[in-house]
Amino acid sequence: MMISEKVYTLVDRYRGFLTDHVYGLEKEVVYGSFKRFLPELKELRKKARDYGLFAPHLPVSAGGLGLTLVEFAHVSEVLGRSPIGHYVFNCQAPDIGNMELMSQYASDQLKTDYLIPLQRGDIRSCFAMTEPAHAGSNPVYLSTSAIRQGDHFVINGHKWFTTGADGASFVIVMAVTDPDNPNPYQRASMLLVPMDTPGCKLLRNIPIMGDVGEDYLSHGEVVFKDCKVPETNLIGSAGEGFALAQERLGPGRIHHCMRWLGICERALEMMCQRALARELSPGKALATQQTIENWIAESAAEIRASRLMVLDTARIIQDDGAKAAKADISTIKFFVSDVLMKIIDRAVQVHGALGISDDTLLSFWYRHERGARIYDGPDEVHKSVLARKILRTYAS
Amino acid sequence: MMISEKVYTLVDRYRGFLTDHVYGLEKEVVYGSFKRFLPELKELRKKARDYGLFAPHLPVSAGGLGLTLVEFAHVSEVLGRSPIGHYVFNCQAPDIGNMELMSQYASDQLKTDYLIPLQRGDIRSCFAMTEPAHAGSNPVYLSTSAIRQGDHFVINGHKWFTTGADGASFVIVMAVTDPDNPNPYQRASMLLVPMDTPGCKLLRNIPIMGDVGEDYLSHGEVVFKDCKVPETNLIGSAGEGFALAQERLGPGRIHHCMRWLGICERALEMMCQRALARELSPGKALATQQTIENWIAESAAEIRASRLMVLDTARIIQDDGAKAAKADISTIKFFVSDVLMKIIDRAVQVHGALGISDDTLLSFWYRHERGARIYDGPDEVHKSVLARKILRTYAS
Amino acid sequence: MMISEKVYTLVDRYRGFLTDHVYGLEKEVVYGSFKRFLPELKELRKKARDYGLFAPHLPVSAGGLGLTLVEFAHVSEVLGRSPIGHYVFNCQAPDIGNMELMSQYASDQLKTDYLIPLQRGDIRSCFAMTEPAHAGSNPVYLSTSAIRQGDHFVINGHKWFTTGADGASFVIVMAVTDPDNPNPYQRASMLLVPMDTPGCKLLRNIPIMGDVGEDYLSHGEVVFKDCKVPETNLIGSAGEGFALAQERLGPGRIHHCMRWLGICERALEMMCQRALARELSPGKALATQQTIENWIAESAAEIRASRLMVLDTARIIQDDGAKAAKADISTIKFFVSDVLMKIIDRAVQVHGALGISDDTLLSFWYRHERGARIYDGPDEVHKSVLARKILRTYAS
Amino acid sequence: MMISEKVYTLVDRYRGFLTDHVYGLEKEVVYGSFKRFLPELKELRKKARDYGLFAPHLPVSAGGLGLTLVEFAHVSEVLGRSPIGHYVFNCQAPDIGNMELMSQYASDQLKTDYLIPLQRGDIRSCFAMTEPAHAGSNPVYLSTSAIRQGDHFVINGHKWFTTGADGASFVIVMAVTDPDNPNPYQRASMLLVPMDTPGCKLLRNIPIMGDVGEDYLSHGEVVFKDCKVPETNLIGSAGEGFALAQERLGPGRIHHCMRWLGICERALEMMCQRALARELSPGKALATQQTIENWIAESAAEIRASRLMVLDTARIIQDDGAKAAKADISTIKFFVSDVLMKIIDRAVQVHGALGISDDTLLSFWYRHERGARIYDGPDEVHKSVLARKILRTYAS
Repeated sequence: MMISEKVYTLVDRYRGFLTDHVYGLEKEVVYGSFKRFLPELKELRKKARDYGLFAPHLPVSAGGLGLTLVEFAHVSEVLGRSPIGHYVFNCQAPDIGNMELMSQYASDQLKTDYLIPLQRGDIRSCFAMTEPAHAGSNPVYLSTSAIRQGDHFVINGHKWFTTGADGASFVIVMAVTDPDNPNPYQRASMLLVPMDTPGCKLLRNIPIMGDVGEDYLSHGEVVFKDCKVPETNLIGSAGEGFALAQERLGPGRIHHCMRWLGICERALEMMCQRALARELSPGKALATQQTIENWIAESAAEIRASRLMVLDTARIIQDDGAKAAKADISTIKFFVSDVLMKIIDRAVQVHGALGISDDTLLSFWYRHERGARIYDGPDEVHKSVLARKILRTYAS
Repeated sequence: MMISEKVYTLVDRYRGFLTDHVYGLEKEVVYGSFKRFLPELKELRKKARDYGLFAPHLPVSAGGLGLTLVEFAHVSEVLGRSPIGHYVFNCQAPDIGNMELMSQYASDQLKTDYLIPLQRGDIRSCFAMTEPAHAGSNPVYLSTSAIRQGDHFVINGHKWFTTGADGASFVIVMAVTDPDNPNPYQRASMLLVPMDTPGCKLLRNIPIMGDVGEDYLSHGEVVFKDCKVPETNLIGSAGEGFALAQERLGPGRIHHCMRWLGICERALEMMCQRALARELSPGKALATQQTIENWIAESAAEIRASRLMVLDTARIIQDDGAKAAKADISTIKFFVSDVLMKIIDRAVQVHGALGISDDTLLSFWYRHERGARIYDGPDEVHKSVLARKILRTYAS
Repeated sequence: MMISEKVYTLVDRYRGFLTDHVYGLEKEVVYGSFKRFLPELKELRKKARDYGLFAPHLPVSAGGLGLTLVEFAHVSEVLGRSPIGHYVFNCQAPDIGNMELMSQYASDQLKTDYLIPLQRGDIRSCFAMTEPAHAGSNPVYLSTSAIRQGDHFVINGHKWFTTGADGASFVIVMAVTDPDNPNPYQRASMLLVPMDTPGCKLLRNIPIMGDVGEDYLSHGEVVFKDCKVPETNLIGSAGEGFALAQERLGPGRIHHCMRWLGICERALEMMCQRALARELSPGKALATQQTIENWIAESAAEIRASRLMVLDTARIIQDDGAKAAKADISTIKFFVSDVLMKIIDRAVQVHGALGISDDTLLSFWYRHERGARIYDGPDEVHKSVLARKILRTYAS
Repeated sequence: MMISEKVYTLVDRYRGFLTDHVYGLEKEVVYGSFKRFLPELKELRKKARDYGLFAPHLPVSAGGLGLTLVEFAHVSEVLGRSPIGHYVFNCQAPDIGNMELMSQYASDQLKTDYLIPLQRGDIRSCFAMTEPAHAGSNPVYLSTSAIRQGDHFVINGHKWFTTGADGASFVIVMAVTDPDNPNPYQRASMLLVPMDTPGCKLLRNIPIMGDVGEDYLSHGEVVFKDCKVPETNLIGSAGEGFALAQERLGPGRIHHCMRWLGICERALEMMCQRALARELSPGKALATQQTIENWIAESAAEIRASRLMVLDTARIIQDDGAKAAKADISTIKFFVSDVLMKIIDRAVQVHGALGISDDTLLSFWYRHERGARIYDGPDEVHKSVLARKILRTYAS
């Protein structure tokens, strides 16, 4: 694709920042205690602001760079090269999605109290949708309820895989407010709940692939028991929960996919470097093996194919809205998550025993990106969605 | 990708032409006798000219539409939907490659005598490179020789898989003219040989996947025995054969890949139509099966990924030349040929017994496109080429 | 697996017979006119009888070798190495299935008139089940009817993919005799119809993958119009059609799978020979490429895995009956047909341009074995069958 | 395969033991602190002895069950269902390999001092071969040296991925004793080194896929610095290291492969149970999805294929020795490790978010079995080994 001079320069500056300030720290952070590194990370965020690189996705008026979705996609790919890349620039999921949502649909009061500190990076937030009792692949199948009592909502329910709940200031909860609505897509609403509200409790950080996690790098199990919030904490209107979730997920999948491509590129880079450095016997590098060549070539092809598709999808969202890009969004979701796991797996194999150790980032990605094929709709669901859409065009 | 209004309209017109004039005839032509249908095909070409659609790849001055490579790529995808699509518009391989080559490197006399009738569609041509005795994957490994005798070359050698030799007016032969050149890439030259030259003989049409073939739809085995042509029949200069072949193959692979994508789209269309029409039991369509959905979704994703890559590669060739696009050309060659065969195979399976019969086009494509992973460099070679290019960027 | 001395010796003798008498002829037969070679094939069958190798599957009393299913499986694998192997020894499908069926369920008169000449190889037969109007994957979904009129049945219907109908003396037809039976599995019956019965007509040999075929090597489209046969032509009882078809398919799938493995072995052999003989450059064989090594190793592993599974399944059928082996039969059907196509495809790729020509047997197999994933139940159906059987063991 | 009454009964008893005594404990052990559970595990081992199930691989004279390799293979598959199965019965790698080796090649003194306590389960051991500086895929490429000084050897070198070094009483080290031997396969020897020997130091437990590990569940980095052991600590003779390693690996790969199949079966079981229990919407189980059916069917087929191959390979080793089974051992190594990872991955996907949590065993296997495609020779090496062996049979 053609890249504008602006993006080209910008991407280069982010790349430089990662090299100079992030790569040296990232392994300690993700394999150690995230909390212990909060001061260093705060310093890095300050530096990012000083360099004029902070919050690339936000409007200039909100302290960001005012990038378009396509421009941000390019930046996001670079940031994806480090597992703490997006965090440093305050454009990490789920906060970025919450920022997008709130800037459009939150009341002025909520914006003042929560959105602005979130955009500044002073607080973090989380998003609670998935429930242990129901398949996440069916987004309208929810048990968490929010019952109106006067001018409040009383929330009861059980959520899990609430990313970053640990340390978050508030959570946006998806809850059923209108259980009898004949349209299942109009039963749920989104409510902002401060994490310290009575009745809102983080049960545990779920141990994921060997890591119980901490703070931003964690996935919480959250219980709501008679948890009461004012009705003004609604994001959008009552009954719009599903519609907003859809809107949130469109750009959200662009963000994820481009981040995944950053990981892919870094893994390919590691694959090449290892293949060149590792000797099978004195003087004969692993890179001379045709199987390794095949993996490198296939990985490069898949990255290129993925990148073009994600950027083109970003362009469609940008020009015509997320709805127009629905099929394309499903396409990139399952295509790129599959590419991601294949490339990480090849990189592990090229590294041999080192690849399964925690001495490189590959172990972190192999474990923590496995979820990519599951969250935001498992691949299987997206394939059905896409196929049915295509089939409809042929149905008489 | 963004499509210009011009291309959008043009593609629509080609699509209409195929629907109105080509789809009704194509099966009879490819499963019957190509020669018997030459009059009808001539009529179609006339009609194409009348509609202003003939020879989209040629400059306006040469009777074409003057499309850029990218614009032609879009058109080529549509034409690929029919196995006789490119032929009808006189932009079929290998003639299109020969036209490109001769317009740049042939003498004025050769242009007058051969190129102009070729561009008009009055004659056909072929290109003889591959030899039965040597692996085609190594393009510098040739035995055919052209020895200078005075102001002539005397050619001896054995070629095969010379597409369309049957019925061609001339062949462009790759032959070693300078066997002792220390640079193996400077040993061969290209020579234009009229097919009726003494010593040039079409031994047979090689039976390919059950079809001995005829005329344009054939692959010949050609022997040169003391075959004498004037030195003015050189295309380019002596020793430039390999360089010209490379130059010829760049856009050539764009043409092939876009044609393959046209096949993919048509196969996906057939897959969908069959899945909707076929009942597993009364009232229950095959399309309700999730496995079918998976195949449709995966095929659509692979087509979209391929198309974006091929178009982007065409853009690079167009802007910066084939050399700048070398890695990208290798990428699309192996990526798209693999996609092609996977999608045809899925379409066959969806059609069941019908899919292996000659009652649909799938059998033709299943058999005759299998070569896609072999000709113009087997996939395995392109993977190595790409991997080595990538590895070089990491070598210290 | 342990092979008995008896089988070891026998397999060796078949292997020798193929080498001495069959390999020299097979390509001409399958790429030329089967009918023209009937005299030579008759000679070969005589020779097979003279060598004591004819009809290995038949009891000694019926002129065969009296092999068990497992013993015959070993022999069948060897015969599968040639596309005319089973024919020469009169154990080709569908005749072998018809022999099995009739020896158990046909009346004495039918045995005298049809089975004995069939066992002797004096006539051929066919089996008509699949119908163009219905998905073959649902075996109880049939339109062909046989209505009782006095002591006759009158058959009306349309069948296709009736293998070897051309030149067959009789056909066993699956037809609905009891359309109102509440159990759909008890609606159909099998009837023997001499091909020259009025109202039984071979419409055409269906062109399959480029070959219209002839005689044994053909697949017919057969129409029954008021075709009347005596009720004594029933095979088994009325309503038993489906049960008999199931019984017929059990060993039938063993026969197919072992034949496929013979093809796999021959294709692997060709792959190795070509890889050793073909030079990429002077002195450097194709076999040195790691990608080729991967294909050889994966093919060998898949053949070994398949063989052990098929033989073990044959043992279960032999010891406990086809019903006990139902899940295992489904398993080998989809597993081995997939292995078959993968290995043929790799062999084609290793042969390059030669692999897509009709100069080797690969083109024949690539085209005519593609049906393996479709006939006798498409792979997708067998996977569902197996999965549901497994799931039932976990259902509470 | 036919299973003897003896094995059938035995397997059933092991299965019962796991259900009654192991499944309830396993998750706490592998996700918690192995060391903390040593007392419980000791109890379990005692119980295993009481039930007459301890050390199935050992001769009766050594306190075992005296099973043949094939019989033990069946048992090993059952034990593989739990990540602590082999440990409980004292037949875990690498101790089992060390027992096999020492019972044949250790001096009587070493047997008394080390083998007998090892067989009794009183101590554990480890095996140090792989070195960080060299690709493990080339087993003769070693830097660790053992230089003879009088009647001692002085060892210097750096090893890693020494499984279970933490808590082991001794290590068997592969070291170069004859660096100038023209035959690289005769340069190394095996030496038994008590872990408390001066100069032998466990640097760290290598963090693997998120777990630093402990005791038996750990992989150590071990350094030898002027570490001196008497020459009587040689296992076998000097220069036999490579030959013994080969001999050790033959049955060792059977053990691994059967253990992997136990994991596969358990993962398939979990897949089925989850698919039946999980509802996509009220009343509609995940198991109704055809994609899930495909995964179950393919997994079952691959397990069956793998099991038959491993058992047949065990039979060959048992009857004819490891050397006769070399190609078969390579085959199962790469075939079964691939099946293992595919099935675990499918089980994760079927479990959705739960599958990536540490709430089931899948996370443990997904992470800790990834090494299966790497250790004991990466798959790629085994493919080459097999292919070359096959190619040699065709070389003229």
